[in-house]
Amino acid sequence: MQFASDNTSGMAPEILAALAAANGGHAPSYGAEDGMLRTTALLREIFEAPEAAVCLVATGTAANALSLAVLCPPWSTVFCHEHAHVAEDECGAPEFYTHGARLVPVMGAHGKIAPADLAAAFATTGAGGVHGMQRGAVSLSNVTEAGTVYTPTEIAALTAVARSFELPVHLDGARFANAIAATGASAADMTWRAGVDVLSFGGTKNGCMGVEAVVIFDPAKAWEFELRRKRGGHLFSKHRFLSAQMAAYLEGGLWLRLAGVANAMAGRLAAGLTAVPGLTQKHPVQANMMFPEWPAGTAARAQAAGARFYGWGLPDGREGARLVTSWSTTAGDVDAFLSALAG
Amino acid sequence: MQFASDNTSGMAPEILAALAAANGGHAPSYGAEDGMLRTTALLREIFEAPEAAVCLVATGTAANALSLAVLCPPWSTVFCHEHAHVAEDECGAPEFYTHGARLVPVMGAHGKIAPADLAAAFATTGAGGVHGMQRGAVSLSNVTEAGTVYTPTEIAALTAVARSFELPVHLDGARFANAIAATGASAADMTWRAGVDVLSFGGTKNGCMGVEAVVIFDPAKAWEFELRRKRGGHLFSKHRFLSAQMAAYLEGGLWLRLAGVANAMAGRLAAGLTAVPGLTQKHPVQANMMFPEWPAGTAARAQAAGARFYGWGLPDGREGARLVTSWSTTAGDVDAFLSALAG
Amino acid sequence: MQFASDNTSGMAPEILAALAAANGGHAPSYGAEDGMLRTTALLREIFEAPEAAVCLVATGTAANALSLAVLCPPWSTVFCHEHAHVAEDECGAPEFYTHGARLVPVMGAHGKIAPADLAAAFATTGAGGVHGMQRGAVSLSNVTEAGTVYTPTEIAALTAVARSFELPVHLDGARFANAIAATGASAADMTWRAGVDVLSFGGTKNGCMGVEAVVIFDPAKAWEFELRRKRGGHLFSKHRFLSAQMAAYLEGGLWLRLAGVANAMAGRLAAGLTAVPGLTQKHPVQANMMFPEWPAGTAARAQAAGARFYGWGLPDGREGARLVTSWSTTAGDVDAFLSALAG
Amino acid sequence: MQFASDNTSGMAPEILAALAAANGGHAPSYGAEDGMLRTTALLREIFEAPEAAVCLVATGTAANALSLAVLCPPWSTVFCHEHAHVAEDECGAPEFYTHGARLVPVMGAHGKIAPADLAAAFATTGAGGVHGMQRGAVSLSNVTEAGTVYTPTEIAALTAVARSFELPVHLDGARFANAIAATGASAADMTWRAGVDVLSFGGTKNGCMGVEAVVIFDPAKAWEFELRRKRGGHLFSKHRFLSAQMAAYLEGGLWLRLAGVANAMAGRLAAGLTAVPGLTQKHPVQANMMFPEWPAGTAARAQAAGARFYGWGLPDGREGARLVTSWSTTAGDVDAFLSALAG
Repeated sequence: MQFASDNTSGMAPEILAALAAANGGHAPSYGAEDGMLRTTALLREIFEAPEAAVCLVATGTAANALSLAVLCPPWSTVFCHEHAHVAEDECGAPEFYTHGARLVPVMGAHGKIAPADLAAAFATTGAGGVHGMQRGAVSLSNVTEAGTVYTPTEIAALTAVARSFELPVHLDGARFANAIAATGASAADMTWRAGVDVLSFGGTKNGCMGVEAVVIFDPAKAWEFELRRKRGGHLFSKHRFLSAQMAAYLEGGLWLRLAGVANAMAGRLAAGLTAVPGLTQKHPVQANMMFPEWPAGTAARAQAAGARFYGWGLPDGREGARLVTSWSTTAGDVDAFLSALAG
Repeated sequence: MQFASDNTSGMAPEILAALAAANGGHAPSYGAEDGMLRTTALLREIFEAPEAAVCLVATGTAANALSLAVLCPPWSTVFCHEHAHVAEDECGAPEFYTHGARLVPVMGAHGKIAPADLAAAFATTGAGGVHGMQRGAVSLSNVTEAGTVYTPTEIAALTAVARSFELPVHLDGARFANAIAATGASAADMTWRAGVDVLSFGGTKNGCMGVEAVVIFDPAKAWEFELRRKRGGHLFSKHRFLSAQMAAYLEGGLWLRLAGVANAMAGRLAAGLTAVPGLTQKHPVQANMMFPEWPAGTAARAQAAGARFYGWGLPDGREGARLVTSWSTTAGDVDAFLSALAG
Repeated sequence: MQFASDNTSGMAPEILAALAAANGGHAPSYGAEDGMLRTTALLREIFEAPEAAVCLVATGTAANALSLAVLCPPWSTVFCHEHAHVAEDECGAPEFYTHGARLVPVMGAHGKIAPADLAAAFATTGAGGVHGMQRGAVSLSNVTEAGTVYTPTEIAALTAVARSFELPVHLDGARFANAIAATGASAADMTWRAGVDVLSFGGTKNGCMGVEAVVIFDPAKAWEFELRRKRGGHLFSKHRFLSAQMAAYLEGGLWLRLAGVANAMAGRLAAGLTAVPGLTQKHPVQANMMFPEWPAGTAARAQAAGARFYGWGLPDGREGARLVTSWSTTAGDVDAFLSALAG
Repeated sequence: MQFASDNTSGMAPEILAALAAANGGHAPSYGAEDGMLRTTALLREIFEAPEAAVCLVATGTAANALSLAVLCPPWSTVFCHEHAHVAEDECGAPEFYTHGARLVPVMGAHGKIAPADLAAAFATTGAGGVHGMQRGAVSLSNVTEAGTVYTPTEIAALTAVARSFELPVHLDGARFANAIAATGASAADMTWRAGVDVLSFGGTKNGCMGVEAVVIFDPAKAWEFELRRKRGGHLFSKHRFLSAQMAAYLEGGLWLRLAGVANAMAGRLAAGLTAVPGLTQKHPVQANMMFPEWPAGTAARAQAAGARFYGWGLPDGREGARLVTSWSTTAGDVDAFLSALAG
């Protein structure tokens, strides 16, 4: 009954098998292996973006921070949701990689930014001429930190605001597969057709060991990204083990199947939770993450039964929790958890 | 007949098996897994350093640059061999992670720094008061980029020079196992007993997939390292796959057995090369890397036979080459290469 | 009728005279001149801090950013008022000099931070372990950007909050003289006795040409400051012209006399404004700056009469303005402005 | 008898008078004053560069480091003479402002770089693809640190090498006036016509109080420079006192007259020194600086007579010294020094 995070799960069998398969003999290092060609081709096909550049790194923080660094100069601002991963969970990696750009937190219900709020944030930034920081870039997350999902239309509405100030847009897709599985949107519609410039396409949380693909829709930015990746220490020598993961993750739609499982298990869980007396969901459940609020004592009861998740007290004496499902969550896990809650 | 680099080889079977074994079920993320406790315990035992802190990263560049960042401030200098990996092969990662420290290249025969030359470099740096950069740290490499090996006594002589200026010492041990296998020295004698403060203990080149252990002999520096690692994007969420590699690499002395193979194959190769007419070795062959110089046309003959390695022309018309053996090099590979040279 | 800023005024005659007096013959460069000894002695006396270190720079931004850089590491946060100069008017200089520290804006009425709000900001920062930025330092401003003044007791209440988290405190005193003149507090009570670690002691806005003294109450931090100042390009070769300004500014209490004039003129102006129909003050007028809000058309009338100041429209159709007096403002200026408003 | 540095001299009377004249009344801050328009116009005329952008800062280190920052990215190299001011005397300001670019020292007799040596330095840098730092920019100094002077033809030969690699060129002209006075070259011929992109045009050492003009021949780079200047804390609020200095320095050719005095006094000094038994000049004397080498005891004799200069012992027991003249050096100073040496 593990619902603490999707990163407590392991590798999907296909990914482990791909590592084993890639292990034969010698291979060129630093991305010159055949597997990288295959990975790039698959991503270009999936994103209907035959010119896109692809770079692999091993962590989502690296993917995000390097992406922002190629999009905005040190004296500029990055507009993001106040609870975005780049703002709260990366120990200042965006500031480090951009050499000092400033995150401007934008508030918004359920982890999502409203176009009007983004426009308002723009209006109060960068108007000071040389005295103030300049507007730099927008960073969105899909799935959001609240477990909600933007539709392509919503993404496009936000990038339109960015475009009106000529700002580029980064999309943190650590759970991009879950967003696509949830909406049924095409990868292209969710990204470049909606105005996204650079995507962090996550693999790690969804069944890989540790690999993220940065998809750079304007390939002119790729060389700078590669230099920044190298000096950040993120260029793998035995790079074949990154591309092997990513290729296997993409082949035959594995990425969507795994995300589909995670989302389905979250749906099963959310449905079951509606029967728990006094339980409410803080945010709409749209992907593989939910934030129930329940009566005091509930968490302890579940944990005593073996459930693992993050929980906290609420000001009114009730409790909040974060429950995350993954590709490896089973119906049995969900049902056992529900039983434990039913106590 | 792959002699281009030890990083074109794959994982040793034990490492792949360890990844598979670590893949069962859920595990705490970010280094809280049991495997990390095991890894730390093993390294403390091997290094006879019960207080040492251990942090894992996936690349040697990250290990080196993060290590230097905790040892010296932005306005200081890092003394290293002019051909050190940190100087030539990391695209400025040390400058990036230290926020601008300056590498001071020290020349020295066969990739090694002589204590007198280190002292001379100190004498011409940092004497300008506030106008000049301050002396920061020393970074040594063992095995060196020339394939030579420092003994513990030689390391100690260099750290003594550093200590006379109160400077800390980093050791780039991307091929530390090869250096230990070559000298028979204890890990402790080669490092902290010889005055080394922080070690990049390499796994990747010697049979791992991608893992380096930074061994911090003064644990008071560990928290800063951890923060720098996180903001550098080098803290793995599914960290169990780093610790699994490293623990397997250490268990039962696998690291020394693998390095022993590489070194033995280099010895076999070097011995065979003595029979090649007109061939000389640029540097003493002491570990798993050599730099033969031979008559024009030799490289083409070997490559035509399927050999892979880096080669270049020399001013006098002869050719230079770099040959690297690894844990996966076989006697058959070596003998085939020698036959190809014999033509 | 210049009320746009105190930095549109020139040098007080005493300062110009000091520059001329310092111009005779040769003098040691880079701060080794006698004038710097005199400056340090004067500040130590005024602050009753015989061990304090003093460093001069030419701009307030340099003073602030360098001060923060010695107080907090790159992975930490600086808590400041949301409208602080460091947050809004320095184009990211704090981020630049700290190598990426993050400003955490704290809201508060009339430009001031309430201790409870500071504590609340602490509570929501740095609790994420290695994943989040660490708490770094507090930066207060006195006079605030709203023209209000903290008393020593208020400063002490805020530093007590900082101390409870072991955080150091910086005070941006670009208008420190105005704050002292307004409160009658001693310089020591307003700073180190109230828990301030480093002070940017402004001279430029209050009659100097361009000089700010950074007063470092813990002299152990001074050498790092000096190195950062040099590599920031802020160490003057003809440093005697900085120390000459500062010494003259301090001698015989000139700094307080000049600030006293500015404050008195602001008082006269504020008193006169009470007679303007429909005029309200957005913030209490406590030093040399005020923010009147008045009926539409008022600004145009004043400007037509030759007044210069910043103004803007308010959502309700009224107008807001910022009026700043300086050491050079005369009663005639004030009265002419009031007449123009009476129009 | 002050020959320690040209920065121990004060302001020329015209500069002090200009400060006094600029002190009347109020003036717009941050460079919007009329004096800045005048300064820009004068520099454009002198440099025959009607489009050039001009930015003022107060120190040479700021001018140099900011200039390099707009010319080269963090992962690139700056080629400069091994004894260049940017390399030896700025405590890492270039690394700080560029966010980690690396200085590549080029050796060369008498402080000057030979085109072939520059080409050789290029050849050994940046050939490593993504693994090595990229070639960034060239920084030349005129007058050099050895007191020698490049002709426009020599500058052009060096920029031609840079252009063959598409690299921009910065010229550190802390003593540019002395170089022009020495050669009689036009400012245009010495800079943009010879291929220089950005010039640090020094005022401080040659009779100003503290002002350097950065002349950016491609105005498209000016806005970035302005942002970097602001976040570096180098934008003066009472900017009129920078532009007043610079305008007065340029008006009527004052800059060349002052440099002419310094150079003439150096010529007189050098001529007199030829009579000193056993004295040799380490470098040709071409501007306002010389490096005599003389018998042991000479320095003490001169210092006993009141002379001030930097001196050091040489390996062979003789002594070396640096003697710098300035706009304020008199024939009496020179003759007294020569008398002291004659003993």
